[in-house]
Amino acid sequence: MSGSKCTRLSGALVKQVLDSVDCVLFDCDGVIWRGDQAVPGAPQVINLLKEKGKKVFFVTNNSTKTSKMYVHKLSTLGFKASEGEVFGTAYCSAMYLKTVCGLEGKVYLIGSDAMRDELEAVGIQQTGVGPDHVSGKPSDWANVPLDPDVKAVVVGFDEHFSFMKVNRAMQYLTQPGCLFVGTNRDTRLPLEGGKAVPGTGCLLQAVEMAAQRQAQTVGKPNHFMFDCVASKFDVDPARCLMVGDRLDTDIMLGSNCGLKTLLTLTGVSTVAEAEAHQKSGCAERQGMVPDYYVESIADLLPALQG
Amino acid sequence: MSGSKCTRLSGALVKQVLDSVDCVLFDCDGVIWRGDQAVPGAPQVINLLKEKGKKVFFVTNNSTKTSKMYVHKLSTLGFKASEGEVFGTAYCSAMYLKTVCGLEGKVYLIGSDAMRDELEAVGIQQTGVGPDHVSGKPSDWANVPLDPDVKAVVVGFDEHFSFMKVNRAMQYLTQPGCLFVGTNRDTRLPLEGGKAVPGTGCLLQAVEMAAQRQAQTVGKPNHFMFDCVASKFDVDPARCLMVGDRLDTDIMLGSNCGLKTLLTLTGVSTVAEAEAHQKSGCAERQGMVPDYYVESIADLLPALQG
Repeated sequence: MSGSKCTRLSGALVKQVLDSVDCVLFDCDGVIWRGDQAVPGAPQVINLLKEKGKKVFFVTNNSTKTSKMYVHKLSTLGFKASEGEVFGTAYCSAMYLKTVCGLEGKVYLIGSDAMRDELEAVGIQQTGVGPDHVSGKPSDWANVPLDPDVKAVVVGFDEHFSFMKVNRAMQYLTQPGCLFVGTNRDTRLPLEGGKAVPGTGCLLQAVEMAAQRQAQTVGKPNHFMFDCVASKFDVDPARCLMVGDRLDTDIMLGSNCGLKTLLTLTGVSTVAEAEAHQKSGCAERQGMVPDYYVESIADLLPALQG
Repeated sequence: MSGSKCTRLSGALVKQVLDSVDCVLFDCDGVIWRGDQAVPGAPQVINLLKEKGKKVFFVTNNSTKTSKMYVHKLSTLGFKASEGEVFGTAYCSAMYLKTVCGLEGKVYLIGSDAMRDELEAVGIQQTGVGPDHVSGKPSDWANVPLDPDVKAVVVGFDEHFSFMKVNRAMQYLTQPGCLFVGTNRDTRLPLEGGKAVPGTGCLLQAVEMAAQRQAQTVGKPNHFMFDCVASKFDVDPARCLMVGDRLDTDIMLGSNCGLKTLLTLTGVSTVAEAEAHQKSGCAERQGMVPDYYVESIADLLPALQG
């Protein structure tokens, strides 16, 4: 079985693999779109999968959009989608705090408007988003007023990330019993043309180092993202296909949850990287070897149109 | 010899150890002062060491003060000191870029006014300090205008640290040939009463993760701090005593440079931690075992007054 991994998915094999699954989970950026453009052919692939009775889900580590915002973007780019099919880390973090942690108390939030909205949608209060500019001197920072109702620190992507936020998070996290949750550990947010900006992983790492504690992360490759799907829909992991462009998040999630895995080359990772993992002989790295790969998910189109 | 490490320095041993050295290097915070208060007895110790002909130096990882500012603080608290005796990481970073790197070009600076001033004092231009607030969207951030003269990114303590600064540093650091220097990796800046705020290490780590590169750090335990002293003064490492409150920076610096080492318990580290390193059997951790320890450097006073 291990010898047959990282196989190019083409010809008759496409139909064979699609017939073996009831459910397909897609990462978004680098898979079905890049920036604000759909990957050519991707809307047809997804709409045809649905027409053929497959369950389709969108599973993304990006924490800057609510499920509602994702449905709007998906529709604009030609994908048929409904809110219940979208699992972003803004939504999943809120679900994690509500269902797994049973949080009773407020969240100190380093994150986006979308994270605030998803927390509020499940009835969790938070301390607000936006800039937190410097005032005072170190002794003032060490004694910043803390909200006694805060029982969790949550870190996601935040363009207003600042020293004062790291400090405030650290002061909360050194209090007994304060939960610590991160959306994901992606080091960079890739953009069009090989460009990128720093990812949530950089922000989370700074807070972890200050607090001298590790956060529990909700995003891929943590199995909680798949648990979220499985808790809402009747899915058999063995009959699910996870499609993604990153070996360390998407493919690893699939491996962690017993899903079939498909790497698409329209994003971050390469076949050479997958092969290096395969040849490493390192058990942990085997989880980053996909079962199959395609140049683009458009390669699935002929089998669906046939 | 290894069996005799981590010995309490008291009685006749104090004079014996002081007689065996010509030069004493002191860390500042947690050693000779805490916050804005001198450690009781510390000014007398340092002034008496000088009267007895010892060379005394102040060696600190703190990057928020120029040498001139340190002399002002030292004088205010009753210590006799001159600019040439002070080695902070603002000054040492500038020296590192000038003498070791031979930098020709500007610095993109994440740091303090003091770092700007020390760079300018050695003729190195930089891009400015202070807030860098958010504007635009991710594609704008990935395409921020870069100064073509910038040939190095330097990261020190910066209360205006922000996402936009991490991003700008990352964009510079992905250009070929850009140098990457950090003042130090201290995870926290300890303050009075067991309080602390995030240290430069947290900021540096975020930039390193985004840039996917390691910085060269100038501060303790890197031997460059001692090289700075040795390049200006005629000192024999074997006849130097390094006095500090942190095992991982001060004592490790001493071990790295072949100095005698003295831990003082008025700051961060404890004897129990030192003993745990000693018993670990781990070669790297042996460098964090001091030769001697005192409750406070005031314990040196009787031998100096006698």
